[in-house]
Amino acid sequence: MHYNVNTIPVGVLGASGYAGREICALVARHPRFALSFATANEQRGQRLRAGGRDITFSAPDDVRLEDAEVVFSALPHGASLTWVERAASAGARVIDLSSDLRPGNGGAPSSGRTAVPYGMPELSAATRARICGAQIVANPGCYPTSILLALAPLQASGLIASGSTIVANAASGVSGAGNAPKRELLFAEVSDDYRAYGVGNSHRHLHEMRATLLSIGADTDLVFTPHLLPVSRGILSTITVTLSEPLTDPLALFRRAYAGEPFMEITEDQPSLRDVVHRNVVRITATMVDGTRQPTLLVTSAIDNLMKGAAGQAVQNANLMCGVDECAGLPA
Amino acid sequence: MHYNVNTIPVGVLGASGYAGREICALVARHPRFALSFATANEQRGQRLRAGGRDITFSAPDDVRLEDAEVVFSALPHGASLTWVERAASAGARVIDLSSDLRPGNGGAPSSGRTAVPYGMPELSAATRARICGAQIVANPGCYPTSILLALAPLQASGLIASGSTIVANAASGVSGAGNAPKRELLFAEVSDDYRAYGVGNSHRHLHEMRATLLSIGADTDLVFTPHLLPVSRGILSTITVTLSEPLTDPLALFRRAYAGEPFMEITEDQPSLRDVVHRNVVRITATMVDGTRQPTLLVTSAIDNLMKGAAGQAVQNANLMCGVDECAGLPA
Amino acid sequence: MHYNVNTIPVGVLGASGYAGREICALVARHPRFALSFATANEQRGQRLRAGGRDITFSAPDDVRLEDAEVVFSALPHGASLTWVERAASAGARVIDLSSDLRPGNGGAPSSGRTAVPYGMPELSAATRARICGAQIVANPGCYPTSILLALAPLQASGLIASGSTIVANAASGVSGAGNAPKRELLFAEVSDDYRAYGVGNSHRHLHEMRATLLSIGADTDLVFTPHLLPVSRGILSTITVTLSEPLTDPLALFRRAYAGEPFMEITEDQPSLRDVVHRNVVRITATMVDGTRQPTLLVTSAIDNLMKGAAGQAVQNANLMCGVDECAGLPA
Amino acid sequence: MHYNVNTIPVGVLGASGYAGREICALVARHPRFALSFATANEQRGQRLRAGGRDITFSAPDDVRLEDAEVVFSALPHGASLTWVERAASAGARVIDLSSDLRPGNGGAPSSGRTAVPYGMPELSAATRARICGAQIVANPGCYPTSILLALAPLQASGLIASGSTIVANAASGVSGAGNAPKRELLFAEVSDDYRAYGVGNSHRHLHEMRATLLSIGADTDLVFTPHLLPVSRGILSTITVTLSEPLTDPLALFRRAYAGEPFMEITEDQPSLRDVVHRNVVRITATMVDGTRQPTLLVTSAIDNLMKGAAGQAVQNANLMCGVDECAGLPA
Repeated sequence: MHYNVNTIPVGVLGASGYAGREICALVARHPRFALSFATANEQRGQRLRAGGRDITFSAPDDVRLEDAEVVFSALPHGASLTWVERAASAGARVIDLSSDLRPGNGGAPSSGRTAVPYGMPELSAATRARICGAQIVANPGCYPTSILLALAPLQASGLIASGSTIVANAASGVSGAGNAPKRELLFAEVSDDYRAYGVGNSHRHLHEMRATLLSIGADTDLVFTPHLLPVSRGILSTITVTLSEPLTDPLALFRRAYAGEPFMEITEDQPSLRDVVHRNVVRITATMVDGTRQPTLLVTSAIDNLMKGAAGQAVQNANLMCGVDECAGLPA
Repeated sequence: MHYNVNTIPVGVLGASGYAGREICALVARHPRFALSFATANEQRGQRLRAGGRDITFSAPDDVRLEDAEVVFSALPHGASLTWVERAASAGARVIDLSSDLRPGNGGAPSSGRTAVPYGMPELSAATRARICGAQIVANPGCYPTSILLALAPLQASGLIASGSTIVANAASGVSGAGNAPKRELLFAEVSDDYRAYGVGNSHRHLHEMRATLLSIGADTDLVFTPHLLPVSRGILSTITVTLSEPLTDPLALFRRAYAGEPFMEITEDQPSLRDVVHRNVVRITATMVDGTRQPTLLVTSAIDNLMKGAAGQAVQNANLMCGVDECAGLPA
Repeated sequence: MHYNVNTIPVGVLGASGYAGREICALVARHPRFALSFATANEQRGQRLRAGGRDITFSAPDDVRLEDAEVVFSALPHGASLTWVERAASAGARVIDLSSDLRPGNGGAPSSGRTAVPYGMPELSAATRARICGAQIVANPGCYPTSILLALAPLQASGLIASGSTIVANAASGVSGAGNAPKRELLFAEVSDDYRAYGVGNSHRHLHEMRATLLSIGADTDLVFTPHLLPVSRGILSTITVTLSEPLTDPLALFRRAYAGEPFMEITEDQPSLRDVVHRNVVRITATMVDGTRQPTLLVTSAIDNLMKGAAGQAVQNANLMCGVDECAGLPA
Repeated sequence: MHYNVNTIPVGVLGASGYAGREICALVARHPRFALSFATANEQRGQRLRAGGRDITFSAPDDVRLEDAEVVFSALPHGASLTWVERAASAGARVIDLSSDLRPGNGGAPSSGRTAVPYGMPELSAATRARICGAQIVANPGCYPTSILLALAPLQASGLIASGSTIVANAASGVSGAGNAPKRELLFAEVSDDYRAYGVGNSHRHLHEMRATLLSIGADTDLVFTPHLLPVSRGILSTITVTLSEPLTDPLALFRRAYAGEPFMEITEDQPSLRDVVHRNVVRITATMVDGTRQPTLLVTSAIDNLMKGAAGQAVQNANLMCGVDECAGLPA
């Protein structure tokens, strides 16, 4: 293959899932990236149309990792880490979309491994700086992206009541569960239905959020309840936070905190899935609740689980790691 | 018209909305009730097929209220009260599905009117007794039905932490918003979308719940956030409650509290809309949350907003008021 | 197990699919049938709630076929025939929901096997008579049920133009494709989509319809194009027929032909899926098309693919075979 | 307002409907067009976010038509014509999305008015030429776009059997019915349903198609049956055509006919709504039907009803009328 001197060759591991396909589509339209390979073990040899280009899936063992300067791993949790390390050894910058290296899942120092940066650029200036200099980045989970970015400005302002419990209810479209054929994800099972799952503490994203909240100094508990929506894409999180003091203008706080951020939208209206699908944004509003003894803030936050919740944020991280414009190739 | 000596003639006011139609269908299949009239001002003269019978809508002024021993009012909030009083004066037992006489909305003593019983038989033995002896009953809202019955056993056991905040997130199918043609309820607007509404304290159901919680002795705050689901029917409520002490077997508590109740289903699995649509039941599970400093219980509760959340509960109340088997004519 | 002298023990083979479950639910509510066993090889030991009863799936080899007087086979095409013959040898009356014995698929004399009756009672008086006396009945496919019953009265009246081509377009909900986990049936693949499939002549139902049309004397060609709808249940067929002469009142023809039939609904309005789901009916209207040189009739026909298109019609056939009221246990 | 010398000022009349909004969004992203005004009588003063820009709706009487060099009218049928003539008198090039000037609806010579060109560039080279030179163009209906472009190559090759009947079944998403609030378009009415409408000959698009077929020399009848799909966007047409002789490679015929056309996609797979939504394309496949006495071709054709079926085709026509690249501003 022949690349322009300015073109950065990119590989995608695990490209047949929803997130992997979305990365391929974003790379196809990216001004600087060009797809070098896309692997999909079970679908090797099959073709995919993504971003207006035809892609042929390779077997993982048939690609040369050193052909790529940037590697995205959308491999399953558990299977990803080995390939991430292999790609890094081959010299590539690597964005790992699995949970293998995320805080609370193995990315924390307690696992004996040096923590890789958590790829959520808007979390703090320090986070963005760490991403810019990293060889490996742990791309955040979809739920944590929608919830943590709704909490970060409150925590940074010292507004979350110490010792309080944050209640985060979230609802996700079905694509969040992947495209492996499972009976419970069939159309005839999901349509017209809605239910909670992973109740109590079983969802891996809970550990990721608790560890990240701890790392930014929050002294709170977190209750997280995900739900399955009968839509394809999108996550809405509804978050109840006890504040240490009332906020007269919560939107102003969020607007200040995210001033200049190209992918953060603070709105007066309630954000909805339609506002955000196919876009790499987090859309947030916040409202003080009337009639409670303790000051209580209701924050709602919408993302596209496959964009800002996965592939879009991964490309955003790759842009930062490569010194490319952070917005390059991303629909905002 | 001619009735069997055992047949109870029934009138439905405001029969063209979703709840009104559902009442007509339930009455059509009821072993003791027979439809005497169904009014719908704008659709007067139009016919409706409900419960296998043909019904012709009358104008409200063209019916004789004294022809009915039981009158259901599914008229809009505000418009219902006058007709409820007129039907009661004509001697009928009346079930008012509007909010006009509900606690926190005018049914409370503060309004100068003697409170009519709140038609939620499972709330307490005293509540059921009051319904049995009442001429007028205020049929509860759909959200309050799903939320209050998920909280009542905890409050009765003194388990809700004093001064704590209950966080109730709920998601409802679109039929909950009625069938008046509004742009924001069009298919092309609602499908693939999901959003919160009435955030803060603006939903009338919040006042109904706060007043009822107060009346059963709860010393708590309530944050309530409703959401609009892209499905036709069903409500799922996800409720986070701080307890005064941990519960080792929350399901046992709910099973004991609702033993013998034909319409309360306590399950180990997460309840889903599919489990409850077209049925007059509340389906509940409860799980202790791990990893929080204060004992925290997560209760989820599913109902069909048009059945146990409206028409079904109304017929259940009518059964009690008439001394008929509480389950008569109700799909459980 | 102990049965009332009037109770007919029933077995269901392949009970874990959508049609099998629906049969179990119908049997549970049937006034004369009682479930003796329900097999599901891969889900053996699992429990199913159907028709208000709990059912435990058995392995096929663990049941005694002679325990059932009626056996429904909802096994896959190809796998069903052996079990149908085994159950018949054990003395049971058998309704085969697979295509193995249907006309055009092996049930025709050309296969060397004596044809078993085609279980579509409304097709003709002779068909119903054959079903009543049969030990084995081939239950029709869902598309053929909706299409052939829309054509039978026209053929019986000699109205279909000789040598003409009938164009049948049909759209089915996803449950028609079964509940085996396949990627193309995932919610995130099916929702918001619509497409034709089996175009040309590849759908097995085409052979079933062509053979049946031939058997009732039709001298026509049939073009059949099925489509996949983003709904769970229901089939709508839209059929264009060239007539030998204009019909001034096509509804009258259909009403006469189906007079007394409990499951045939002839309407002036266009039938829709909502009219028929969860009911064992075929709902039909017919309209002459203006502005064509040859007299052309447009017939639309709606069924629930799992009821009149599968389980409901199977129970209807079993009722006839057992001398029970044809409507017993069937929602019309 | 200030425009670049190369920028063409554009006005949109009736901008609050689905098609009008889509035009505004396309104009916002168009390299040469810039929105000068967008009218919406009932929503005057309201703001709309379209194509990343904020638009404020004006009252029709408050805009100066001469401020626009190109005017799109998305006004209702009947109300459009007056405004089209007014805009043309003011010197603008006008694309009328209503049916007022379409063939068979008033655009035909029989109405006493000189027919304006029919804005379907791919119909024939002569059609495109007429559009390029026109001041007013009648933008085609959505169903006709999907059906006529599936038939044009067959007619041009003389392959449609003389005197035969073309059967066109089509299914459209709900946005095709507009966003005026009507009860039958509510989510709770449309979801899970599917039905035919306008059966017989009542749909205005039928006249448009018959007149156009006549104008391109077809000696055939057309039966057209539209259906309402429970999706927001997209039309799939399934068309059965009797040929004068068998075609061994129907795809080759379509590929030749549409060689070089940027918006025509000929595929081997069955086109589906997902393939085309948000894109200004017609996606077509064609298959010979086996087992019929007369050679029969099955053509399926998918479009986005709001793009190639309305706003996209309107912008395509405007591009041609202004001498701009035909593809400018259009997602293909």
